[in-house]
Amino acid sequence: MGRSLIIGGGLVGSLLSVYLARRGHTVDVFERYAEARTGSGAKRPSVNLTLCERGLQALEQVGLRQRVEELAVPARGRLIHGADGSVVRQPYGNHGEAIHSIAHSALNDAIVDFAKREPGVHFHFGQKCVHVDLAATAARFANTSTGAITEVNADRIFGADGAYSTVRLHLQKLERFNYSQQYLNEGYKSLRIPGRADGTPALAGSMLHIWPRGTRMLIGFPNRDASVTLGILLPFEGMHSYASLNAEDNLLAFFREWFPDVTELIPGLAEQFFARPPNTLLTVRCSPWSYEDKILLIGDAAHAILPSYGQGANAGFEDCAVLAQCMDEYRSDWRSAFKAFEDRRRPNMDYMGDLCVDHFVELCDLIGDPMFLKRREIERQLNELYPDLYRSLYDMVTFSTMPYVEAMRIDRRQRAFIDRLIAQEGFAVAPEDPRIRDSLLHLQAEAR
Amino acid sequence: MGRSLIIGGGLVGSLLSVYLARRGHTVDVFERYAEARTGSGAKRPSVNLTLCERGLQALEQVGLRQRVEELAVPARGRLIHGADGSVVRQPYGNHGEAIHSIAHSALNDAIVDFAKREPGVHFHFGQKCVHVDLAATAARFANTSTGAITEVNADRIFGADGAYSTVRLHLQKLERFNYSQQYLNEGYKSLRIPGRADGTPALAGSMLHIWPRGTRMLIGFPNRDASVTLGILLPFEGMHSYASLNAEDNLLAFFREWFPDVTELIPGLAEQFFARPPNTLLTVRCSPWSYEDKILLIGDAAHAILPSYGQGANAGFEDCAVLAQCMDEYRSDWRSAFKAFEDRRRPNMDYMGDLCVDHFVELCDLIGDPMFLKRREIERQLNELYPDLYRSLYDMVTFSTMPYVEAMRIDRRQRAFIDRLIAQEGFAVAPEDPRIRDSLLHLQAEAR
Repeated sequence: MGRSLIIGGGLVGSLLSVYLARRGHTVDVFERYAEARTGSGAKRPSVNLTLCERGLQALEQVGLRQRVEELAVPARGRLIHGADGSVVRQPYGNHGEAIHSIAHSALNDAIVDFAKREPGVHFHFGQKCVHVDLAATAARFANTSTGAITEVNADRIFGADGAYSTVRLHLQKLERFNYSQQYLNEGYKSLRIPGRADGTPALAGSMLHIWPRGTRMLIGFPNRDASVTLGILLPFEGMHSYASLNAEDNLLAFFREWFPDVTELIPGLAEQFFARPPNTLLTVRCSPWSYEDKILLIGDAAHAILPSYGQGANAGFEDCAVLAQCMDEYRSDWRSAFKAFEDRRRPNMDYMGDLCVDHFVELCDLIGDPMFLKRREIERQLNELYPDLYRSLYDMVTFSTMPYVEAMRIDRRQRAFIDRLIAQEGFAVAPEDPRIRDSLLHLQAEAR
Repeated sequence: MGRSLIIGGGLVGSLLSVYLARRGHTVDVFERYAEARTGSGAKRPSVNLTLCERGLQALEQVGLRQRVEELAVPARGRLIHGADGSVVRQPYGNHGEAIHSIAHSALNDAIVDFAKREPGVHFHFGQKCVHVDLAATAARFANTSTGAITEVNADRIFGADGAYSTVRLHLQKLERFNYSQQYLNEGYKSLRIPGRADGTPALAGSMLHIWPRGTRMLIGFPNRDASVTLGILLPFEGMHSYASLNAEDNLLAFFREWFPDVTELIPGLAEQFFARPPNTLLTVRCSPWSYEDKILLIGDAAHAILPSYGQGANAGFEDCAVLAQCMDEYRSDWRSAFKAFEDRRRPNMDYMGDLCVDHFVELCDLIGDPMFLKRREIERQLNELYPDLYRSLYDMVTFSTMPYVEAMRIDRRQRAFIDRLIAQEGFAVAPEDPRIRDSLLHLQAEAR
């Protein structure tokens, strides 16, 4: 089976090591950050993410689903905190559907711990990739403490080194490599709201909390220990931006004006806020994802998307499952397996990249918009009345494992259908109306 | 005024040196290729390009228009060579409008010769840029013969180093640099048809010649010496591609089948064809184009576009004129001048990048399409009847100097108008129909 080198021991790299080991590979994983338990964990990003069905199924295939679900908190909907102090509850579905909130570091540690028990998997922490030789299938790493250089040769190299991938940077030098990186004008930081003294959360549990204020926004993710991880999104430049909120007094004044209901819940707000620079958010597209039968990009390194649909980690885990499928189909023909992987995954991720940019606008501007809420309500009613015939795009993306592009095709037809409904004067979804059921049946048949 | 360093002594870099010198700058131009007259000219690309009004006006502002027009051949239209042996003549306009065909090397030499006579301009040939230090406004060059390294410091660096820009590669390392490079699956090579013994061209003169065959295509550009430079476009992979046409016999068989009327006009066809690898074609977009008041990208380095609209060099020359305008407006405030330059030019080049990708499809597939030809004929008639009220998009781009986005806005309205005309049964443009004149007047008022 040969020796595989995985560059990047984050979520996707560490899960991939398990998938490869189960197929008889010897796997070395080189990770830039020091090991969580022994080194300085402080350098690692401290954010939360949400897992949904497609991510969980990819974990399930190697026996990791239960362990991860135990570490996560199910969130059954959003609580929208309006600028006027109002709170609106938006359940994710009519049937108790939940996404699972978990700290990035907790999820990463769980997968690494699991992977280390696989025969043939070896982790090397605190090793920053400084060069990749594509033709020689070799990579060079610098020890982040000592600076010592290690040269590693392998039969195959997997670039699972994230949105700012070093492996991709070397692929970029190939002739005719298509590449695009597009940044948001906004960036995020993380803040922490501790649980109450009695062990209960300071914000209603089992929900995601959103304070939508245009391109300024707070999102709260529940944790197992009753704390809430807050993501704050601000523009880099201009009014109320990272550039302008540069001192404790104007930061606190901004929070008290924009997010009054949450400001006092964040201890040492300014200290937390100024502890680190903001993180950038970007969409990355490229092609090809592979070089001969030697190098393959996977996860964010191949297709970074904005976090607005909560799909980044889920899509990366799904990558591992699809790649394993391709490996099983093509056996030792790695070149074909890599090509099949890209053929199956890239159209889905191209679409998802666009959708996340669009949905970012929705999150920012539309959550409080009456027309948007009307569409959502019609969608909710249709799903309630015809659960087998109508699922919203969010529902299909989050609670099914159908390919993203299939969800897109169905959604386009449904969207035109709802447009027609809304255009009818005095329209209301009536359960007894047989024309709606017929139309939905027709839509479903068309999309197949 | 300070010392300016221009990286790249191609079309844009050498013209820019004149514009800067006229404003009192000391200018050093570092160019990768050896000087044409003294070094090996063979390494330089041997292609033709066409100049149109906006390129010529930018040359005119420094007094170079006449010299360049003397070296070029006006082409007043296209001759379309059909697969069936038919030849269709498409004039560019109703009023003798012409574009000007010139060898890239001849144009480049003319500008360099002119620039060298400017006080304060110094050219350094055979110097490949290997590093740019953005913060220090410094660059490092390797002599392409000796390997000797030269370090250059300047007050400002202009990256005029083309689609594969090294300066841009260093800007790409900045935080939040948006970047995209998209390649065509097709590439081009150049071939040469010499003039006849009697000094006349082997193909009808004063015209561009096009043999459209889907994504395989020949284009012939007339030269002053009666020769014709042929550009051949083929896919890199697949049937009838650079990969498959790998020997003299299958190359000649391909030419005789696809381009029978021209094959015998190309002496040493196989030798010419196999002398060099094919050139790639790509669209590059990025932002920001500048770094503080120190570094600016210009020309293809900032916005490479496909050659399908013949606008690459013209847009690059126009860049020089617009930058000079911004410099004059903002005087010593370089940061604002650079920002204003990008604000004025980038929307135009973003649009042009898309248009060239679309027009590539037109060139490949539509030139022989009846519906496409019908639209063209309606456009031609409208322009003939109402020269002040109707100009096609090609006409506005090629024979005016209005900003590309303005041409786009007018074209969108005109396109919808022609759609409505075509939708009318039995429609024909009749000069006596006052409704058409009224509609065109209305369109023009709207687009303002």
